This record gives sequence, C-alpha cells and structure tokens, in this order.
Amino acid sequence: MEKIAIFPGSFDPFTVGHESIVRRAIPLFDQIIVAIGYNSAKSGYFPLEKRKNWIIDIFKNDVSIVVDTYEGLTTNFCKLKNAKYLLRGLRTAADFEYERAIAQMNKMIETELETVFILTAPEHSFISSTIVREVIRYGGDASKFVPKEIDLTL
Amino acid sequence: MEKIAIFPGSFDPFTVGHESIVRRAIPLFDQIIVAIGYNSAKSGYFPLEKRKNWIIDIFKNDVSIVVDTYEGLTTNFCKLKNAKYLLRGLRTAADFEYERAIAQMNKMIETELETVFILTAPEHSFISSTIVREVIRYGGDASKFVPKEIDLTL
Amino acid sequence: MEKIAIFPGSFDPFTVGHESIVRRAIPLFDQIIVAIGYNSAKSGYFPLEKRKNWIIDIFKNDVSIVVDTYEGLTTNFCKLKNAKYLLRGLRTAADFEYERAIAQMNKMIETELETVFILTAPEHSFISSTIVREVIRYGGDASKFVPKEIDLTL
Amino acid sequence: MEKIAIFPGSFDPFTVGHESIVRRAIPLFDQIIVAIGYNSAKSGYFPLEKRKNWIIDIFKNDVSIVVDTYEGLTTNFCKLKNAKYLLRGLRTAADFEYERAIAQMNKMIETELETVFILTAPEHSFISSTIVREVIRYGGDASKFVPKEIDLTL
Amino acid sequence: MEKIAIFPGSFDPFTVGHESIVRRAIPLFDQIIVAIGYNSAKSGYFPLEKRKNWIIDIFKNDVSIVVDTYEGLTTNFCKLKNAKYLLRGLRTAADFEYERAIAQMNKMIETELETVFILTAPEHSFISSTIVREVIRYGGDASKFVPKEIDLTL
Amino acid sequence: MEKIAIFPGSFDPFTVGHESIVRRAIPLFDQIIVAIGYNSAKSGYFPLEKRKNWIIDIFKNDVSIVVDTYEGLTTNFCKLKNAKYLLRGLRTAADFEYERAIAQMNKMIETELETVFILTAPEHSFISSTIVREVIRYGGDASKFVPKEIDLTL
Repeated sequence: MEKIAIFPGSFDPFTVGHESIVRRAIPLFDQIIVAIGYNSAKSGYFPLEKRKNWIIDIFKNDVSIVVDTYEGLTTNFCKLKNAKYLLRGLRTAADFEYERAIAQMNKMIETELETVFILTAPEHSFISSTIVREVIRYGGDASKFVPKEIDLTL
Repeated sequence: MEKIAIFPGSFDPFTVGHESIVRRAIPLFDQIIVAIGYNSAKSGYFPLEKRKNWIIDIFKNDVSIVVDTYEGLTTNFCKLKNAKYLLRGLRTAADFEYERAIAQMNKMIETELETVFILTAPEHSFISSTIVREVIRYGGDASKFVPKEIDLTL
Repeated sequence: MEKIAIFPGSFDPFTVGHESIVRRAIPLFDQIIVAIGYNSAKSGYFPLEKRKNWIIDIFKNDVSIVVDTYEGLTTNFCKLKNAKYLLRGLRTAADFEYERAIAQMNKMIETELETVFILTAPEHSFISSTIVREVIRYGGDASKFVPKEIDLTL
Repeated sequence: MEKIAIFPGSFDPFTVGHESIVRRAIPLFDQIIVAIGYNSAKSGYFPLEKRKNWIIDIFKNDVSIVVDTYEGLTTNFCKLKNAKYLLRGLRTAADFEYERAIAQMNKMIETELETVFILTAPEHSFISSTIVREVIRYGGDASKFVPKEIDLTL
Repeated sequence: MEKIAIFPGSFDPFTVGHESIVRRAIPLFDQIIVAIGYNSAKSGYFPLEKRKNWIIDIFKNDVSIVVDTYEGLTTNFCKLKNAKYLLRGLRTAADFEYERAIAQMNKMIETELETVFILTAPEHSFISSTIVREVIRYGGDASKFVPKEIDLTL
Repeated sequence: MEKIAIFPGSFDPFTVGHESIVRRAIPLFDQIIVAIGYNSAKSGYFPLEKRKNWIIDIFKNDVSIVVDTYEGLTTNFCKLKNAKYLLRGLRTAADFEYERAIAQMNKMIETELETVFILTAPEHSFISSTIVREVIRYGGDASKFVPKEIDLTL
C-alpha cells in the first residue's frame, strides 16, 4: 500500500522552514501532498493561486511532491486522498502543545490517522508565516525567510 | 459558612472536559455555580440561552449545581454570589500559564478569592470549545466531545 | 463524610511557600494532614524529627492541621488515612508538568483520589526546598524563605 | 560610543511592570528610548498621544529616558536612532518563546542588534496591558496595575 | 533502500507507552530496531537480559521488529545498523525540549540522521519508566503500566 | 562607576554557546568576570585548572574579560567583586524557568543585583556542557561544540 502523507497549512507564505520539513520527509513517504487549507469566507494575505504556484515551483523537480488545496476538515481531506499520515514540523514547546491538541483531536475523529513530526532546523526555529507577513507589511526585506523561488516583490 | 465555587467560562459549547471537572469537584463544595460569562457587545457561536439550557440539562440531577450567566468582571460576580472559590480545569502547560495570570490578577483585585485547580482527565486533555467549534464549522461530527445531553444538530 | 486532604512532601525544610499553600487550603477541608514522606534508605538534609517538629510548631494553633510521616506509596497513605484529596501547590509550568504526571499516575492507582492544586503566591514562586538547602550549604542566610518558627541556626 | 537601547511596545497602557523594567535598566545604558509602536490603520484602546504623555510624566526626572513613537519595523527604528540594543522584560515561559522568536528574527534582519532581557519582578509577573484593559472594560479598578502618574479615570 | 529506524532507550522497564509508539510506527519503516542502550559502568533496575527478553516477547509476532542492545553513542549504533531514522515518542512540552536538544545534537554529529516523532496516546501521557520503578520500589502494583508480556513479580 | 558583570557557571567544559554569550555582552559592560563556581567536595569532569586555562586562552585578546574561580554563594562573589550584574544565556523555555528561579532568589538575597539575559544563537540552542560530556564519554567527537582553543584530546 502506498504511504501518503498530507502536509497541511495555510502557507501564507511558504517559508524556508516549511521547505526544509518537506524535503527531509521525502524519503519517508511515497507521496507527500502539500495541502493548502483555505476558508472561502476569509481571504489570506497572498492569493491562494499564488501560494499554490510558488509551492509547485519549489518542488518542480520532486516527483513525489504534489500540491493541492482543500477546504473543511483536514481529516476529511486525508480520507479523500487515502492518506494515513499527517506531516508536521515542530519548532518550540508552544508549537508542540498546539500541535499535540490538533493531532489528538484528528486521531479521535479518524483513528487510523497518524501525525508524524519532524524538527525544524535550529536556524529556522524562529521563522513563521505570521512573522514573515509582519516584516513584509512594514516594508522590511523578508527574502531570507522564504525559498528563493518565491519573489515577494511581485 | 457555605462553601460556594464559581466555575466561569463561555462554554461555547460545554464539553465533556468541562463536565468531568464539575462532577469531580461536587464533593469539594456546598454549591458550584456554573457561570456563563457573556459580552453583550459580541455574540457567541451558540446562543447564550441554548448554552445555559444545555448545562442545566446536564446537571439536572445534581442539587448542588446551579447554572447562571454574568457580564463584567468575574470577581464582581463572585462577590455578588458570596463565592470564595473559583474552580478551573488544567490541561496543558500553556493553559497553566494563562490561568495563573488570571488567578493572580483576580486575587489582587479580591484578596479573599482562591482559585482551585483540578486536572482535566488525560483522555480529555486535547478537547476545547474552540476546537469543537472548528470541527462543527467544517461539517465534522463533534458529538464525542460534548456531553450526550447536547444535541449539536438542533 | 469528613473531607480529608494529604499535603505530601519531603519538606526538607518546610518553606514559606508551603505554609502559604496549607493556610489558604484550611477552609476547603475538614482536616489537612501535612505528610512528610521519607525513605529509610536515604536520610534527608534535616533530620526527620526536626522537620516534623518545625511543622507542628508552625501550625500549633490550627486545629484542623495534623502532621505525620509516611514511607512508601502516597496513595497507600491516603487510603490508610481515608483521605480522598491530595493538596499540591503550583509555581511554574515545569512544576505543572511534573505534578500532572504524578497526579494522573495516582488517580490510575487509586481512582477515587483527586489532586487539588492551589497557586503559590507570586512572591514565593521561586522558593523551593532545594534552593533553600543550597543557600544554607554555602553559608547564606535563608531565614527569609522559611516560616519564622524555623530556626535554621540550631 | 553611546549605548542606546530601545524599549519597544504598544504600552496600551504602560504598566507598573513596564516601569520596573525600565528603571532597573537605567544604569545599563546611556539612553533608553521608550518607543511606542503604532499602526496608523488600527487605533489602540488609549489614544497614542495619551500613552506618550503618561510615559513622559512617569520618567520626567530621569534624564536618560526618552519617549518616542514609531511605525513600521522595530529594526528600522533602531537603525534610525543608532540603537544597538533592544530591551525587553520576561515574565513567563510563554513570554520567553514569543520574545525569542522576535529577537532572533530581528537579529537576522539586523545582525548588530542585541536584545537584552531583564526579569519582571515576581509581584508583577501576571500584569499585562491586555489584562489591564480587560479590567477597565468591565468597570473594575485597575489603578494598582499602572504607575501612579496614570489616571485611568480621565 | 531499506528504511531502518532505531527506537533507542533504556527501557527499564518497557512500558505500554513504548509499545504503543513502536506498534504505530511499524507501517512507516521496513525495520524498527528497539535498541536498549546500556552503560557497563552502571547497572539498571532490571537486568539487561530481562529487559531484552521482555521486548522480544512483546514483538514476537512482528517480523519487522528487531531487539538489540548497544553501548556508546546512539549515532554510532545508527551508522553500524545503517539506520537513517531515530524514532521517539513525545508526551509533554518538557519531553519535547529535552528530545529536541538530543535530536539536534545527533543531527550535528550525523547529518543524515533524522529523528521522527510520534505522539504518546493521551492515556499514556503520564507513564514513564521512572514512575513505574517508583511504584514497584514502594510495593505498588505497576502491572497496568507495562505490556501484559511483562511479569514484574518474577 | 564601573559596570562589572559576573558570568557564572561550572563550564565543564566551556562551549561555543558560552563563548558567543560572552562575546556579544562585551560592549555592554566595562568588565565581565567569567567565574567558574566549584565545590571542593566534588570534582568536575575536567580539572578546575584546565577549565580556567582554556577560558583564559579563549579570551586572551579581550582586555575586559577576566577569568576567576569561586566557591560558595554566587551573590557573595558578586559583592566581593563589586559586580552589580549577573550575565546569563537563555536557550529554551525550560532554561528560562530554571534561570528565573535562581535570578529571583539572588535578587532577594542581594537586592541590588540584576541578572541580564542574552539569547543563545539558534545554532547553539541545543549545546550544553552536559551533552558535550556525554559525547566525550562515549568516544564521540565533540570538537564542534567547544571553542577551537579547547583541545579535548589532551
């Protein structure tokens, strides 16, 4: 049976931290679906299409990486895609407590679903989409915090 | 003197975690007032009346449990009810830090007021009203996370 | 039925933090047993008898406080004393995680046993028996950290 | 070279905790700029001018304290002021994780910038501008939580 | 290439928490080596041979599980076994911070080595070998905390 | 008045993390005393003299850095040296809670004493003397974790 993992997030925008998690998880799974969760009632900072195209571009040479979007419960999307794994990165103890609640909730809804965690590299531990948006909003240069395929000036 | 405790919250909705805390605290106090704090300027996810009736139903056989609503400072409501105790559940370290700040603030405002903490059962440790609302919003089945008296489909 | 709580610890020595927790819990219980756990295979910093007499002296005017010693599992001592509550103070998030594991373990061994937590006052939040012993060991003055009934110079 | 530190915040309002951090840091720096960050797109609870005048009043006898306002990236304001230090207070473990991310982000943007942390006094550890606003909103008395120069009733 | 993971620990004794982590990770790897680290200079609570035989018995029907012992650096044992993954369970925020330091250290020593984390089930979150030994030492019944294959009375 | 800071620790051994904290704090103080605390009743892993000479060598070109040793309370050593500041590095939330207790205890013993914290660089956040000793004990190569002036093979 194929080992499929979902890497869910809003990726608004995708950061070097996200990229590092996905790349290091490639050998673990047959397929990783980078799944951009959206809420049609509220738009993000970057348009959904832009976020998706950036990620497609980043992984254009990685055949086992698929980029997709979904609305609604992550567990439903996993079932739809026949994915038995959720992939998440962990940076800090605060992260951990938040992720643990989500993962345990997901497992209670979908017993077969396992969340697999990989550590964010130390040099990425302070990078989050929220902080990146903050830097951009105030006119700062956030290019160091996103993969080189993402041109924030466009 | 009667030992009265306030169990304050927005209970939007009341969860199995909340129920377990209250039930286990029954022998400790002469009366526990489950007190739904509301803010007339912003409505909750479930109507206040519905939230209140659910909780009344859950504890209909428990004579020492009273359900009430209040607006404004919790410490004022405690004084009004002559309650010397606040009852709170603790799930995680993040919870603890938040609750500690609130409890110490309350004690500085009302020196006689003591906050008494009971641990959430391990199997409830990831359940919160916020996550339950999230599941409902996305069309998931949240019935496992609320007491059986709460019919979320109505 | 009498509400009996055990306040367990090695109390080597009893600190102003411990005293404050016990005093604030007095109205909650019919009896609080300050229970000094010891291990006959390893002696403490202060002799057990001394620790016990200090605590007796501190609460000599509080009729609902009893001081006792025990060896072995705390849950066994609770059963022996017919105590349904364990009382513990919480200072920090690290404390909380440690106390949670112990409390959940105790509850799994003795289902009826409930651990009730009260917050250490902010001004006592950094005081522990370990740090007090450290100060004494290096010839410092630790009198501010213990109740006035404890004369550390004897 | 002059040692200049920025103490950034929204200070909505300035609390006794903030005051204590600044006063204790005075001997460390030649100049401390208390810098009120604002966002012209969203107004605070108290008008910016009021917040500024309160802080000026609190430090009117301290020659090395300057009060200023800024919009945009804190790192840009530091460069503008030739400040090599950011000053921050730490209360809790949750605070620490948040502050660490901000500080490491700032250091990545501006390599020369060092964030210096001082501990909030234990008796101020639960005081935050957010909780103070909450107390005020509900008609409580928040005067104990702000410096005496701040008259919240005006 | 075979996907081999090492699940390192002293397993003194192996608990139901450990068992659950390994079982849930079976589909992720081609082989999982449960590796009992020992230190010839200090003996454990249970003899190494006993610990090993217990684990062999627990997984006797699981062909992809191998039980082994090692002394020295975990990273060296990984190289010896050609294992590219370390498997670890996470219970609490304190756990997380400890595990993160170890994992980052290991990755700095052996760049190719990835630590994969799975969450301990909520109902096992308070179980540790240390607490199990404590219960046994004081004559308590620890059978609920270890797999049924482990007979602690022998 | 001269601004003197003590950087206390057992430095068994001094790591690249320690070095980075001291170097970044140099501009903040007129003098930093790297103070190796020892306990004549128990020896360290590396001889005190060796630890001292290593640190002297590391800072041989930094005129404001002094290396010293002390036994007993850190607060007493501060008084002796007329130091009004303690300098400490912070890596993790667990670190923070431990350091906060020590710093508040020190401030209660010596009211004038202020502890100043600087963040460990992300890439050093997992390095501790304890982990370095562990690597050495098991025959690993720990040279990446200590300053180049320290030759662990001697």
